[in-house]
Amino acid sequence: MGRVTERRKVLRIRDGALSTRPDTLVAEEPLEIRLNGKPLAITMRTPGDDFALAAGFLVSEGVLATASDLQNIVYCAGATADGVNTYNVVDVKTAPGVTLPDFTLERNVYTSSSCGLCGKASLDAVRTTARFPIADTPPVRVTPELLASLPDRLRAAQRVFDRTGGLHAAALFTEDGELLDIREDVGRHNAVDKLVGRALQNGELPLSRTILLVSGRASFELAQKAVMAGIPVLAAVSAPSSLAVDLAAETGLTLVGFLRGSSMNVYAGEDRIALREAAAQG
Amino acid sequence: MGRVTERRKVLRIRDGALSTRPDTLVAEEPLEIRLNGKPLAITMRTPGDDFALAAGFLVSEGVLATASDLQNIVYCAGATADGVNTYNVVDVKTAPGVTLPDFTLERNVYTSSSCGLCGKASLDAVRTTARFPIADTPPVRVTPELLASLPDRLRAAQRVFDRTGGLHAAALFTEDGELLDIREDVGRHNAVDKLVGRALQNGELPLSRTILLVSGRASFELAQKAVMAGIPVLAAVSAPSSLAVDLAAETGLTLVGFLRGSSMNVYAGEDRIALREAAAQG
Repeated sequence: MGRVTERRKVLRIRDGALSTRPDTLVAEEPLEIRLNGKPLAITMRTPGDDFALAAGFLVSEGVLATASDLQNIVYCAGATADGVNTYNVVDVKTAPGVTLPDFTLERNVYTSSSCGLCGKASLDAVRTTARFPIADTPPVRVTPELLASLPDRLRAAQRVFDRTGGLHAAALFTEDGELLDIREDVGRHNAVDKLVGRALQNGELPLSRTILLVSGRASFELAQKAVMAGIPVLAAVSAPSSLAVDLAAETGLTLVGFLRGSSMNVYAGEDRIALREAAAQG
Repeated sequence: MGRVTERRKVLRIRDGALSTRPDTLVAEEPLEIRLNGKPLAITMRTPGDDFALAAGFLVSEGVLATASDLQNIVYCAGATADGVNTYNVVDVKTAPGVTLPDFTLERNVYTSSSCGLCGKASLDAVRTTARFPIADTPPVRVTPELLASLPDRLRAAQRVFDRTGGLHAAALFTEDGELLDIREDVGRHNAVDKLVGRALQNGELPLSRTILLVSGRASFELAQKAVMAGIPVLAAVSAPSSLAVDLAAETGLTLVGFLRGSSMNVYAGEDRIALREAAAQG
């Protein structure tokens, strides 16, 4: 467990010159998440923070919302032929009284009885499972300057990225720009789940006064995770998708994309951007 | 259908100056894939090439291997309240006699009766479902110079990326470097599924004499898709993961990462790299 990187021999070719040397790679292993003993999902992740990952995944799925919803999380004891614990299966036990959704394969694919699946159905699914609204009172207000400062602070805090180039990072900041937590993973959704799960374990949900920064693009799935954790501002270094923007607009999430240098695009929830300060500098 | 991009209003902030203008975003919509009428999976994808995406997904899952395995693919006719076809649900009908795996939720998560899930189990799952080995006879041999030329050709051929910054690209080249096909999608696994599915539809599987280039990183999942399609060389512009390298080494896939300028790293299958030519230039 905790194998964030692994070493492999690699043949390097640089302008026609060859060399063989060890290279550091981001570790990727499957994690099976069980809910009260029943297999629920498998994700390819970078080992480490597995309990937080499982907890955060279940926040995104609408199962967990507070620390008291969670009874415990354990690695399944080694039941392989040779009795080894692979640390790749976790079982999440919910507290008595927690309502469990019907996790059938059909539910998993948002199936209605019709063939009418569409983006709207995905938006509806988030709205119906959200355990808390985005409720930042008074509203979080951030300046463009503060937002512009975050990517550099993310990169400075990244521990593994520079060595492997294979990790996505997600970081949680206060509305004043203080770094609260940073997680890295081969899958960007896992990095966010790890942040959110850790916050749940610490009794910090909803994350009403925070900014979530992700190192890559903002997909629907990442916007969903922000909304489910009650995060009011999602900022991405790269592009958002159409459905991420639609979800943000519908739920009141502030969505910032292409956050690079002193530039950014605000796709939804611009009321939280302190625009006067920005205009005054223009 | 075919909404590869969508327009949304965006607030641009550039060095403190504000402007509001329309922005082009990559479209993201859910696609439900049904197999013989039964819901199987949902993927968030960029609309377009949906039949190829579904077919390629089923190649990766070991269901389809030849064009004759496929009877037909249709969009489910509109069964929403207002009778509209959302073009977000496809049904794949297999030909009589095609063996269908047991797609239960349990199967989906590679569950054994034990808690022994590990990377090895993922490798085994690929090996047991692979419909053809990587069988390039005589072996494909590519020079570093040829590989180095591919990313520029991918970028030149990308139609949407430059406009939205939100798309992953995957391209298929012949062993001589001729571009065969290119697909773009909000999800990199979808881009590869679209390439492979199109090849299946054209009766071109296994893709024994091709090079698959992806615009980002090489995860286990992408290496799996290459192996399942019989592709002998997978090249990625960015980093591979540990499990992708392990899968490549085990199946005989040539895996190249960090393909940038005249530099690259070869992680597995270096016998297909024409090294003498490279060394001669060193």
